[in-house]
Amino acid sequence: MAKIPYRFYLTEEQLPKQWYNLRADMKEQPAPLLNPATLKPVTKEDLTPVFCDKLAGQELDGETRYIDIPEEIQEMYKIYRPSPLCRAYNLEKALGTPAKIYYKFEGNNTSGSHKLNSAVAQAYYAKEQGLTSLTTETGAGQWGTALSEACAYFGLDLNVFMVKGSYEQKPFRRAVMQVFDGKVIPSPSNTTEVGKKILAEKPNTSGSLGCAISEAVEKATLTPNCRYVLGSVLNQVLLHQSIIGLESHKAMEILGEYPDVVIGCAGGGSNLGGLLSPFMRDKLNGSRPNTRFVAVEPASCPSLTRGKYAYDYCDTGKITPLAKMYTLGCGFIPSANHAGGLRYHGMSPIMSKLYHDGYIEAVSYEQTKIFDAAVMFAKYETILPAPESAHAIKGAIDEALKCKESGEEKTILFGLTGTGYFDMKAYMEYLEGKMTDYIPTDEDLQRGFDSLPKID
Amino acid sequence: MAKIPYRFYLTEEQLPKQWYNLRADMKEQPAPLLNPATLKPVTKEDLTPVFCDKLAGQELDGETRYIDIPEEIQEMYKIYRPSPLCRAYNLEKALGTPAKIYYKFEGNNTSGSHKLNSAVAQAYYAKEQGLTSLTTETGAGQWGTALSEACAYFGLDLNVFMVKGSYEQKPFRRAVMQVFDGKVIPSPSNTTEVGKKILAEKPNTSGSLGCAISEAVEKATLTPNCRYVLGSVLNQVLLHQSIIGLESHKAMEILGEYPDVVIGCAGGGSNLGGLLSPFMRDKLNGSRPNTRFVAVEPASCPSLTRGKYAYDYCDTGKITPLAKMYTLGCGFIPSANHAGGLRYHGMSPIMSKLYHDGYIEAVSYEQTKIFDAAVMFAKYETILPAPESAHAIKGAIDEALKCKESGEEKTILFGLTGTGYFDMKAYMEYLEGKMTDYIPTDEDLQRGFDSLPKID
Repeated sequence: MAKIPYRFYLTEEQLPKQWYNLRADMKEQPAPLLNPATLKPVTKEDLTPVFCDKLAGQELDGETRYIDIPEEIQEMYKIYRPSPLCRAYNLEKALGTPAKIYYKFEGNNTSGSHKLNSAVAQAYYAKEQGLTSLTTETGAGQWGTALSEACAYFGLDLNVFMVKGSYEQKPFRRAVMQVFDGKVIPSPSNTTEVGKKILAEKPNTSGSLGCAISEAVEKATLTPNCRYVLGSVLNQVLLHQSIIGLESHKAMEILGEYPDVVIGCAGGGSNLGGLLSPFMRDKLNGSRPNTRFVAVEPASCPSLTRGKYAYDYCDTGKITPLAKMYTLGCGFIPSANHAGGLRYHGMSPIMSKLYHDGYIEAVSYEQTKIFDAAVMFAKYETILPAPESAHAIKGAIDEALKCKESGEEKTILFGLTGTGYFDMKAYMEYLEGKMTDYIPTDEDLQRGFDSLPKID
Repeated sequence: MAKIPYRFYLTEEQLPKQWYNLRADMKEQPAPLLNPATLKPVTKEDLTPVFCDKLAGQELDGETRYIDIPEEIQEMYKIYRPSPLCRAYNLEKALGTPAKIYYKFEGNNTSGSHKLNSAVAQAYYAKEQGLTSLTTETGAGQWGTALSEACAYFGLDLNVFMVKGSYEQKPFRRAVMQVFDGKVIPSPSNTTEVGKKILAEKPNTSGSLGCAISEAVEKATLTPNCRYVLGSVLNQVLLHQSIIGLESHKAMEILGEYPDVVIGCAGGGSNLGGLLSPFMRDKLNGSRPNTRFVAVEPASCPSLTRGKYAYDYCDTGKITPLAKMYTLGCGFIPSANHAGGLRYHGMSPIMSKLYHDGYIEAVSYEQTKIFDAAVMFAKYETILPAPESAHAIKGAIDEALKCKESGEEKTILFGLTGTGYFDMKAYMEYLEGKMTDYIPTDEDLQRGFDSLPKID
C-alpha cells in the first residue's frame, strides 16, 4: 500500500452532504432541556422566540439520523473545507511510539477554529427564515469571529457582546470581528436593560460570560427579525460539528485506517462531540465495539472529572433553559490565571449522557503540562496550537506513550481544533516561566455546587 | 467537465520533486553580483564564508534548469504543502466580472507565509554541511518565524536580529519565534561590534533592517559552524520559491486552465518570482507567448515603478555584495506610516532584469486602497490577508474589473502570500479611519538615489 500522506484532503465530491445526528442512535436519549419558568421539557414554541425555527427544530430532534446540509451551507463549507486529516509522523518519531497518530486540523480558516462549522449553519438558517440580524456573546473571541465571518458571508447584521475584560485585553481579536462588520460591544453595556442594571451596581466590572449572554438574549428578543445564537453545548451545534467526524471517518476509510482511540478537548463539548459522532455510531451499533473515547479537560475547570450530573442553567445569569449535564454549578468561577478557553462550567448534554453511561472516558491536566505538549507539538508538526487544542495533544501524547510501554501499535485520532495566534500572551507567560497551575479545592467546587438549582 | 472546486489540492505524489531555475531559460542573464571590495563578479569563494556551500552554488548557477529537491526537504514540504489553488467564486460574483480568478494561498502554515519554502531549504543545506547554527535578521517577523520553524525542525540553533522597534512593538511575533527556540535579539545589540558601535553613537535608536543585517552577518562570520541566511531578493530564494509556481502550474493543468495574467505583490520579489517562474518559462520558450505578468508594489516604496536600474547594495549598511536591480537607493527610507512589509529599497535581480526587458509590468497602489481590497476579500473569501498579499488582491480585482468592462473572460492567477493575524494594528488603523497614504515626492526619491554607489 502507498505510504499514508502527511496531509490528506478529501475532494469536493467526497465531502459529506448530510450531518449525522448521534442522538438517533443513542440507547437512551439525553435528558430534555427544561423551561426555567415551568421546569417542564421545553417545546419548540418555547425556543423559537430566541432561536431560528429550523435550529429550534434541530435542537429537539432526537430521531432523524441524517439531516441534509443545505446547498448554500455546503457551498460555504467548500471555501474552507475539507480540513486536512494529518498523520503526525514527526511527533510519532520524537515520542518513539509504535502508535499511529492522526489529527483532524480545523484551524486553517480565519476564525482559527472549528467554530465556523456551526456559525455558517446558524447564520444560513437565520437568513433563510428572513431574519436580518443575530446576536451572540463571546469571551476569548473565537466564536464571535466565526459568526462575524458567517454573517458577513450571508449578509446579516451581527451584535457581539464581548466580555469587557476581553474587549480591552484583546483589541486584535475585536478588530478581526470588525473586519467582518461584526458590531462588537463591551459587556456590560448601556445598550440593554440588564447591562444598564449591572453597570449601575458595578460601574467598574470587567464583565462575565453570563452577563454577556443575558445582554445578547435581551437584545435578540427586543430587536425585530433578530435571534440569538450560541457556539457550543447545544444539540444543534454538535449536529453541525458532526462534519468534523464524518470527514475524518471517510478519510480514514479511504486510507484503510480506523481509530482505536478518539481524543478531543472538552469545554462545552462541541468539538469532541462532532469528531466522535460517526465513530460512536459504529460503537453503538456494534460494528466497532472496542473504540475508546477520551475527553480532555483542564484541571482548573474539571466538569466531567469532578463535576456533578445534574440539571443546571447554561449561563451564570440563570435565564436560559436548564440542561442535565456534568456541571461545576453555574456559579463556578474558574481561576483567572487559566489560559485556555475551556472554562465553561457545564458540558453538552449529549456528551454528558454518553459519559454518564460509560461510553466516554475523561482526563484532566494542569495548564503548564498542556503548554509543554503544545510547544513540543509546534516544533515537530509546525503548527502552533490553541491552548484548548493542546489539551487533546497532551491526551494523544500520553496515549502514544502508553503504547510505547506496551508495544501496542494503536491508531490514535485527535481533534486539533484551532491555532494559537491570538493566544501569544499565554505562550509568553509559559516561555518566561511565569505560568502557574491551579486546581480547585473541594471547597472551591462546593461553592460552585451550592449554586446548582434544586430540581432533581 | 466537473465544476472546478473552490480549493484544489495536489496529492503528495503530484508534488514537484525539482525546483525550476528560471535563469536557465532567460534570453539574457541578470547581471552578476559584485564583490563590494573588488567590484568584480562574486565567486563561490567570496560567498562561502557567509552562505552555505550548496546555497552559494545555487546563487551563482544560471544554467541548471531543474534542481532536485533533497528528500529531507520534500518531507518537510509535505507537512504544510501542497498549498491550495483556490477559485475565488465569491469574489468574482461580488465584482460581477466574467473573469475567472484563481489564487495560490501560501498562508496555511504557522509562519503565515510563503517564506517557509526557502527557510526549509536553507536550514536543510546548513544541517547537511554539518553547521550547527544560523543567523538572520527580521523586520516584521515573518521571515524570522519561518526560519525558526525550519531550524527547530532540523535541530539548528538560530539567532534572529530583530529590528528593535519591531521587537518592542510586536512581542507576539517574537514569542512565536521563541516557541520554536529562535533566540531573538533586539537590534542594535551589544552582542556584536557593529551593534555596540551604533549603540554608542545612538543609544536610543529603534534600529533598522540594515543594522540588523550587519549584526547578523558579523555574528555568522565570527561564530564557528555558523552561516547567515536571507529570506528574499537572492537567486537561491527565487529558486526555492519556484515550488509555488510549479504547484500552481500543475494544478491548473489538471483543471484544464492556464492564466492569461499572473499577479503578485513585490517587495524583494521572492513570492512573485516563485509564482511566475514556470509560466514565464512557457512565455520565454514560445509555448504561451501572450501571458502577462504584473508586479504590484506600494506607492510608498515604488522600486519598480519609480526606481532606477542600477548596481546597489542589498543592505543599508553597505556590507553586502552589489546587485544590479531596480532600486530606490540603499539610503531610501520608506515612510514609517506604511503598514505593509514591502518596504525594501531594491528588487530581486532576476525580477529586475525581466522587468527591464519588458516581460513584466508593474503597478503601485496607496495603502488605503490596498486595505479596501483586503477587507472586501476577507468578507467574500473568508481569509484575512496580510497587507503585503493584499497588494496582489488589489491588482487582481482591478484586472477583473477591466474584464467586466471589456467583457473578456480572462483567467487571472494571483499569489496570496500570507495571513494578516499579526497585522491587526494596521487593520485597526484602517477601520478607525486613521490610516493615511504616503507617496514619496521626487525630492524624497532623489535623496535615495543620491545614496547609490557610483559604479555604472
